Amino acid sequence: MHIRIINPNTTRAMTETIGTAAKNVAASGTRITATQPASGPVSIESHFDEAISAVGVAEEVLAGERSEDPVDAYVIACFGDPGLLAARELTRAPVIGIAEAAFHVATMISTRFSVVTTLGRTGIIAEHLLESYGFNHHCRRVRAAEIPVLDLERNAKVAVQRLVEECRRAKEEDNIGAIVLGCGGMADLTDYLTDAVGLPIIEGVTAAVKLSEALVGLNLGTSKHGDLAFPRPKPFTGRFESFSDLNTR
Amino acid sequence: MHIRIINPNTTRAMTETIGTAAKNVAASGTRITATQPASGPVSIESHFDEAISAVGVAEEVLAGERSEDPVDAYVIACFGDPGLLAARELTRAPVIGIAEAAFHVATMISTRFSVVTTLGRTGIIAEHLLESYGFNHHCRRVRAAEIPVLDLERNAKVAVQRLVEECRRAKEEDNIGAIVLGCGGMADLTDYLTDAVGLPIIEGVTAAVKLSEALVGLNLGTSKHGDLAFPRPKPFTGRFESFSDLNTR
Amino acid sequence: MHIRIINPNTTRAMTETIGTAAKNVAASGTRITATQPASGPVSIESHFDEAISAVGVAEEVLAGERSEDPVDAYVIACFGDPGLLAARELTRAPVIGIAEAAFHVATMISTRFSVVTTLGRTGIIAEHLLESYGFNHHCRRVRAAEIPVLDLERNAKVAVQRLVEECRRAKEEDNIGAIVLGCGGMADLTDYLTDAVGLPIIEGVTAAVKLSEALVGLNLGTSKHGDLAFPRPKPFTGRFESFSDLNTR
Amino acid sequence: MHIRIINPNTTRAMTETIGTAAKNVAASGTRITATQPASGPVSIESHFDEAISAVGVAEEVLAGERSEDPVDAYVIACFGDPGLLAARELTRAPVIGIAEAAFHVATMISTRFSVVTTLGRTGIIAEHLLESYGFNHHCRRVRAAEIPVLDLERNAKVAVQRLVEECRRAKEEDNIGAIVLGCGGMADLTDYLTDAVGLPIIEGVTAAVKLSEALVGLNLGTSKHGDLAFPRPKPFTGRFESFSDLNTR
Amino acid sequence: MHIRIINPNTTRAMTETIGTAAKNVAASGTRITATQPASGPVSIESHFDEAISAVGVAEEVLAGERSEDPVDAYVIACFGDPGLLAARELTRAPVIGIAEAAFHVATMISTRFSVVTTLGRTGIIAEHLLESYGFNHHCRRVRAAEIPVLDLERNAKVAVQRLVEECRRAKEEDNIGAIVLGCGGMADLTDYLTDAVGLPIIEGVTAAVKLSEALVGLNLGTSKHGDLAFPRPKPFTGRFESFSDLNTR
Amino acid sequence: MHIRIINPNTTRAMTETIGTAAKNVAASGTRITATQPASGPVSIESHFDEAISAVGVAEEVLAGERSEDPVDAYVIACFGDPGLLAARELTRAPVIGIAEAAFHVATMISTRFSVVTTLGRTGIIAEHLLESYGFNHHCRRVRAAEIPVLDLERNAKVAVQRLVEECRRAKEEDNIGAIVLGCGGMADLTDYLTDAVGLPIIEGVTAAVKLSEALVGLNLGTSKHGDLAFPRPKPFTGRFESFSDLNTR
Repeated sequence: MHIRIINPNTTRAMTETIGTAAKNVAASGTRITATQPASGPVSIESHFDEAISAVGVAEEVLAGERSEDPVDAYVIACFGDPGLLAARELTRAPVIGIAEAAFHVATMISTRFSVVTTLGRTGIIAEHLLESYGFNHHCRRVRAAEIPVLDLERNAKVAVQRLVEECRRAKEEDNIGAIVLGCGGMADLTDYLTDAVGLPIIEGVTAAVKLSEALVGLNLGTSKHGDLAFPRPKPFTGRFESFSDLNTR
Repeated sequence: MHIRIINPNTTRAMTETIGTAAKNVAASGTRITATQPASGPVSIESHFDEAISAVGVAEEVLAGERSEDPVDAYVIACFGDPGLLAARELTRAPVIGIAEAAFHVATMISTRFSVVTTLGRTGIIAEHLLESYGFNHHCRRVRAAEIPVLDLERNAKVAVQRLVEECRRAKEEDNIGAIVLGCGGMADLTDYLTDAVGLPIIEGVTAAVKLSEALVGLNLGTSKHGDLAFPRPKPFTGRFESFSDLNTR
Repeated sequence: MHIRIINPNTTRAMTETIGTAAKNVAASGTRITATQPASGPVSIESHFDEAISAVGVAEEVLAGERSEDPVDAYVIACFGDPGLLAARELTRAPVIGIAEAAFHVATMISTRFSVVTTLGRTGIIAEHLLESYGFNHHCRRVRAAEIPVLDLERNAKVAVQRLVEECRRAKEEDNIGAIVLGCGGMADLTDYLTDAVGLPIIEGVTAAVKLSEALVGLNLGTSKHGDLAFPRPKPFTGRFESFSDLNTR
Repeated sequence: MHIRIINPNTTRAMTETIGTAAKNVAASGTRITATQPASGPVSIESHFDEAISAVGVAEEVLAGERSEDPVDAYVIACFGDPGLLAARELTRAPVIGIAEAAFHVATMISTRFSVVTTLGRTGIIAEHLLESYGFNHHCRRVRAAEIPVLDLERNAKVAVQRLVEECRRAKEEDNIGAIVLGCGGMADLTDYLTDAVGLPIIEGVTAAVKLSEALVGLNLGTSKHGDLAFPRPKPFTGRFESFSDLNTR
Repeated sequence: MHIRIINPNTTRAMTETIGTAAKNVAASGTRITATQPASGPVSIESHFDEAISAVGVAEEVLAGERSEDPVDAYVIACFGDPGLLAARELTRAPVIGIAEAAFHVATMISTRFSVVTTLGRTGIIAEHLLESYGFNHHCRRVRAAEIPVLDLERNAKVAVQRLVEECRRAKEEDNIGAIVLGCGGMADLTDYLTDAVGLPIIEGVTAAVKLSEALVGLNLGTSKHGDLAFPRPKPFTGRFESFSDLNTR
Repeated sequence: MHIRIINPNTTRAMTETIGTAAKNVAASGTRITATQPASGPVSIESHFDEAISAVGVAEEVLAGERSEDPVDAYVIACFGDPGLLAARELTRAPVIGIAEAAFHVATMISTRFSVVTTLGRTGIIAEHLLESYGFNHHCRRVRAAEIPVLDLERNAKVAVQRLVEECRRAKEEDNIGAIVLGCGGMADLTDYLTDAVGLPIIEGVTAAVKLSEALVGLNLGTSKHGDLAFPRPKPFTGRFESFSDLNTR
């Protein structure tokens, strides 16, 4: 089974962090490839960054579909799940976002959880997803450690310390059974944080890999009946001309 | 007052239809300009089309911000409100999507309404917006006339006839006070449909123009406090390099 | 265009404050008249006050309908939107409540807002409206400055100071992009508070005037199809006999 | 125990129907008095009728409070529960609306119910109450038999036949365990309809009487802590002057 | 009228406390019997305790149904309402849980309430019930006094003191009109707490007794139409063999 | 990895059907054991059956915990997820219900789904779970094929034909992308139905096996922090005495 992890930002170091974390949980028969778009923001910390990154996500799915190395499932490795429904339209394979993956898993091992994300301003993205997916009643609180995303790479020691502190506050104050980490860049921190905080810590990249394996193992892919069917082929103009008359199957 | 209408698809004829409809309702002191992205899909009929179109929307807002002809408010003239929150981050001006505009107006003149959109597969986009905005209890039903978007331009007679029929079914079956038209390309049909159906018909482009005038008249623009603040400047790579280190004010 | 602002309480000084604020934002072609019922409470600070005031609201709408100076839109200028649906039944014109107007506007310029109202005991009215209109997910918190309504007229300095303090607390604690003022008597304070607090302040009277202009400009009025149709004419007894066999058009 | 049933409309025959139904279910120690306002609509079939009737409801509660024959609980016998929160502010006694009473009871004997009301246009009032009270998930459908309220008195045979038919349709189509009758004027029809339809029929007047007895038996009355405390005394003008400086205890 | 109170735990002292509290509020024509299962947990403080206790509840209802002393209504006297829907299937009589009873009553005398329960870990049970019943918008907060259930019997002085303190905090901090006590073992504390806290205190056992009287007085029992119909008779194996081929009427 | 499937009813043939279906999707390193309680109903078709079956579920989890063949994850293989939260309290391993599993999976491959269950009267159980889990907005409709559960074993041909017909109706009428099968006894029908209906068919037993593998692969088990911690040990009486002073780790 081949699972392609798409890091929606263009920071290769983060792709590697994510890919390594994914490989660490992959089943023996699962092959992980991790990729990032050629074009897009180096980190995703706003609605704008997220909107732009969705194009790269779609392109990486299309690349996977056209690849000689067929992809069995895709993971979108940014906590805002950018381009999730668009990506699903482009393939028969399952596509899993790391936010949804983490939320699904959190509700299976606890009755209430909190989210700890990077910046306060991206908390609203998590809140919107919680509402849209139907998990808002299960989440006590969306918290921010106020860490810029790339500090998880560049300034890891300080960033991790802040994360530990915010997770501990969540444990003490929120009346919860688990914590969801709200950034793909935290994919390698699960074990460390679990130990440091003393509560199950759920991270989306690893969760999405395992949910992808689950769907593939069920022989289930994105439904092509209804609103996730392949897009109607049509002309695209300008720099998106390559999307014209998409040849999907 | 200068309101820029952004048609998120790249079909110039539709931009003109939309612009004309906008001008027809604009106040005497309001100047309308209508534009569309250089790059993107010729129509928006899927999550994928919508995701790609969000880039063009953002670029058109940035172009407006850098223009020597300052823009007082932006309207996003596709019923999925693509890129709405991203666009809001890029400007101090108000940005209004035509779906939200139509929903707001519908709740001010009726207690329950239905939506009549083009294709069944895009109905889910309207449903998601209704839930996200909080209007789902006010909407009885999202209906589709099963018209491809560009048929509103190319094959108008048949398309309009189907619309009339679906609107009449909504009137008879849905126990409603108003109908919301679910496509920017229907902007010129409001009067005709109102007469033909005998019930208030709400169209988003015109609604958004008037709500934009309202916000500008209140001296209110997008809040720059909290999660709609300007995006943190950062590098973008590849074909999105021009978004690097955005110089917003 | 003639917009009639109905102050649902009987304090003429407040009507004047409200009328002046309305005129300050009205478009050049808009004429504002401000009125208050002959009968009713001098301020509205309870469910009881609100229930009684709804009669005066209805009467003022009927007076407007019978006037030789035709009214194009009505605004109900008390934050509980008393008698809103009743008033809508009585006219083909749009009728806008200031609470709904402020909520609509708040969601167009921010993703989350708080309400700052006068007395704690009227907070529940705002909460009920938020739920009924569908805006409860967008509102973080309903706060009270604990100011009796008429202190906004009589004891303005102290009242305004308390308002500033409560708005600042909301800004610091609530993770919001905007504040909605929860009383028609605050209509003249928007600019002052915006400066003092440093965050968009939305006030309902002014918001409702601009939304009324928007609806009239769209040639949309209250739907007479369905449950907002004119009431069935019938006898009324006693001091409400004048409502008998209402002659509406 | 003295329960005062307030028929919010001014049709004495309906007050008698309601009073008789109330007496039929009252406990041996319960004394029922039934009254209606001196002023108001002869029937309540619109938001406007309802708004006006709330004044009469409040006055009847005040009359009860000042009476030499102390009232232990009040019932508001119109299915829109007009003036319910206002009435609660005016007394330490419990005040029960017949819509809420019927909904409470329905959820105790079934998992899903439907409402059968008089006119289609008043269905929205029931829908709003269901949402506000939190019972909307329990109600499958609000149906109308299209009977003017006073036809329940004047034209009873035809009216009852239509009711039976609509109730039977609800039973067959709605997948429910019980039916709630949506009008105070149906108070005497419960037994007949239960037999004719073959499903528990819940009627609000009788339900409210028994819930009132329950609250009084628990020594519980309307909370005077928080937003249902007595209204702040203040001047009222014009024909509502008698409400000035309310002397409540 | 014969109301059977079922204490779902097997602590006879608690059954007596509950029975006494029930008798204190019962109407003159009401006879209370209080019972507990022969088998089950001595207190209910977890989902597991609750699941096991549901069997005993069902058996006690079956015993009541087969008794020569016919039962007119059943009360399930544990705040998690264990086995409520199962119990309803087994009888034509009404069955009331004390949590639902308390919630119903709380919404009739206040607009917002808080729950004060025993242990933090059982708070989630109250939260789930509030959501399922539709009362979550009416409840500000579920609080725990951190008292093991049986301490209400064994260590009453300390337990009551903690309850008083938690109730006072609720009164001061939660902006509420009433408090719901979240444990059947608190049935005898209502009067004491009402005095000590100065706010209406609602207790479920007493509330359920009065609501049962109300339903019986309305001649209403559990609907046997739809999903609360008697279970299809079938074999049960092992220690539940006695449930085989249930002979219900 | 050892996954224990607990069939909550006592029909061994169904346990075998379920176990076989589970094995068919299990990963190569996964060992499936399937079991059913010694005591309980032969099928689960009511709230009562479900309540009784929860005891057997708990016992099977306890048996697994005490077994010399350690269990890594438990699956509760009845569509009502009986005893789910109780079971979670008894173990550090993950416990997955087949209804939740199917709902989780359905939302990952479609935007809207319908449920097709056995008997109409059990539809309410699915509705309650959808609400409790937060998936109600994603589910269009809960449908019943009106097949007694054991007919899936005894009368398979007719039962399957009815299922096919109901699934086809769902596909045609419900505007969905996937169907969830609402009974553990349908575990072997997924492939057949997928072919016959032409739409992804999601079955809970197989879904739960793969989600269990996912959780174990993530090294995540039921949180022992908060309300899913092991139950406080305590005495149980009568036939449940064996639950006394549970020795959990």
